[in-house]
Amino acid sequence: MTAPHTVADIPTPALILDVAAMQANIERMAEFFREGACKLRPHFKAHKTPEIARRQLAAGSCTGLTCATVAEAEAVADFCDDILIANEVIGADKTARVATIASRGVDIKIAVDSHEGLAMAGEAAATAGVEVGVLVDVNVGMPRCGVQPDAAAELASRVAETPGVRLRGLMGYEGHAVGIPEREKREQVTRDAVDRLLSAVSAVRDAGLPCEIVSAGGTGSYDITGRIRGVTEVQAGSYTLMDGAYEKLDISFRQAFWVLGTVISRPAPGLCVTDSGHKACTEDHGNPDVDGVEGASILFLSDEHASITLPPESAIAVGDRIRLVPSHTDPTINLHDVIYVLEGDRVTDVWPIAARGYAEQRR
Amino acid sequence: MTAPHTVADIPTPALILDVAAMQANIERMAEFFREGACKLRPHFKAHKTPEIARRQLAAGSCTGLTCATVAEAEAVADFCDDILIANEVIGADKTARVATIASRGVDIKIAVDSHEGLAMAGEAAATAGVEVGVLVDVNVGMPRCGVQPDAAAELASRVAETPGVRLRGLMGYEGHAVGIPEREKREQVTRDAVDRLLSAVSAVRDAGLPCEIVSAGGTGSYDITGRIRGVTEVQAGSYTLMDGAYEKLDISFRQAFWVLGTVISRPAPGLCVTDSGHKACTEDHGNPDVDGVEGASILFLSDEHASITLPPESAIAVGDRIRLVPSHTDPTINLHDVIYVLEGDRVTDVWPIAARGYAEQRR
Repeated sequence: MTAPHTVADIPTPALILDVAAMQANIERMAEFFREGACKLRPHFKAHKTPEIARRQLAAGSCTGLTCATVAEAEAVADFCDDILIANEVIGADKTARVATIASRGVDIKIAVDSHEGLAMAGEAAATAGVEVGVLVDVNVGMPRCGVQPDAAAELASRVAETPGVRLRGLMGYEGHAVGIPEREKREQVTRDAVDRLLSAVSAVRDAGLPCEIVSAGGTGSYDITGRIRGVTEVQAGSYTLMDGAYEKLDISFRQAFWVLGTVISRPAPGLCVTDSGHKACTEDHGNPDVDGVEGASILFLSDEHASITLPPESAIAVGDRIRLVPSHTDPTINLHDVIYVLEGDRVTDVWPIAARGYAEQRR
Repeated sequence: MTAPHTVADIPTPALILDVAAMQANIERMAEFFREGACKLRPHFKAHKTPEIARRQLAAGSCTGLTCATVAEAEAVADFCDDILIANEVIGADKTARVATIASRGVDIKIAVDSHEGLAMAGEAAATAGVEVGVLVDVNVGMPRCGVQPDAAAELASRVAETPGVRLRGLMGYEGHAVGIPEREKREQVTRDAVDRLLSAVSAVRDAGLPCEIVSAGGTGSYDITGRIRGVTEVQAGSYTLMDGAYEKLDISFRQAFWVLGTVISRPAPGLCVTDSGHKACTEDHGNPDVDGVEGASILFLSDEHASITLPPESAIAVGDRIRLVPSHTDPTINLHDVIYVLEGDRVTDVWPIAARGYAEQRR
């Protein structure tokens, strides 16, 4: 197989990356966190691409990386020695893999919100003779994981007493706030959520327990959460590549990746069909946007087709390429093996995407 | 890595398969097509699993396999010598790969609905010194690919004149009909669609051109389309494993696969969170159903989480396993590397899923 030289040679459907736009996003975010006590811990789940994560770390202002799964942590442990799995790790197979990462000299931390999860983590760490860090996960308003703020100190004291693990701090993700389009409302919901987290931090400290790390935030709230005194790091990820959902916010990062498709059918003057369906571009945050074709919009996606309405006079022809802006970065990236790196129209590299598909990646 | 012995050992999230239910579905569909002129050409895109496709062929009543992409055709060419890519194949890279499949002795056919697509197919086949079969794709009512019925004869005559390709027949997919829940309406829309296809067949034959294959239908319409005189094969796929969308129809195949998740958090009496989010189970046809937990339903999916509401008295605990019935088979399968094969609770095999991720699979 010959590597493609220009965007025209890329087999579709494919992810394409404007590396200059991505680098600008990375530097802009690093710049924001250069001043002040709060640092950035970029979330790997957004792009699952080691080459991108390396560039985030190289730009500075980072404490390390955030991951959502053990497989992601295994992938980044090759080049990053400070990892937070910002998620509950449940199952003896998975906690054993976390202990293996710790045994490689990585400062690895996981989220815990239950006695069961704490016991599993402690047992795996003690068995492997390593120490695994724990952040108590606090529910700050989204109906997902985390203990209530007033229960955090009790769980933290349990963590402090459990062999194999070490209490490192607290986390709480304001996922119900990060996508609110109106700035004022987003700011208010974010502040309320972080207040809940900080009330838990106070309770933990009042109990005489350490709380070195206080982790929160995402791309939609980084400049709110990242300026609240007491938060030590922010878990943003989507800012690197951006997507249709975050583009509607006032956060000024640039769209840096697209799903490239080929027009495979031109069945009517007002309609074309590309090969970029929902097996190439998810629709969980709504239909993608059509980029660079005046008046074009997605009618619907099928597995391997995007039906796109066009102005009747459109000159789009079979074989032409069309770029879609995905509505949601994370699951779209997860559909692809590689991302094609572009400088202008030139393909300068092809980067592998890691930790997809859930096959066990035990070392 | 030790292969899991029972369902309790499977690392989650994971696809699990009730092989007995699948085999019953396969045999039931093969039985339907045993009598009559119309045969079955199972659609590989639904499951992308060679081990399942082998069993479909072994059950009989099949002309070969249907695929949606060139990569899928490459995967099944190892064990199937009669393949239809029921989709337009556009791009010199892809038509060259089709020609390579033909050079391996496979009777391969592709869908064509444009002069451009026809020219590309002919050129690649002639260059490789092989013959590629063509079905003219007819639009039967869904706003996707295909020429209008009254334009089919013109394109068919072009096909007949083009070196490298051979006109094998027509296809038309009534995708707008297969999901209609009311039987009577589904039957009417299906019959109208197939009428459009058959009017094109008549026009092609009236022009003195051959039309050996007339391909249509899906799981929602197989017993309508498969009994209409003139249709020679049906492209159904989802019947093998089934999903939440098709389960609402009156077609009586059994649910045969699930996404298995682990409860990772129990943040409130009426709520649990599993590790089976939309990177493991798509929501393009709506939320999955929760299987086997009385009164449970999906609140929302995140990348790596399913938030599930429970009756307040539920005894579900962290570490328990929960099965989801995906709303849509095809894109959910596409998220996973493997499917765990179960007989009861025993894992008897782990089958690889093929042709995911769009990395070029040129041989």
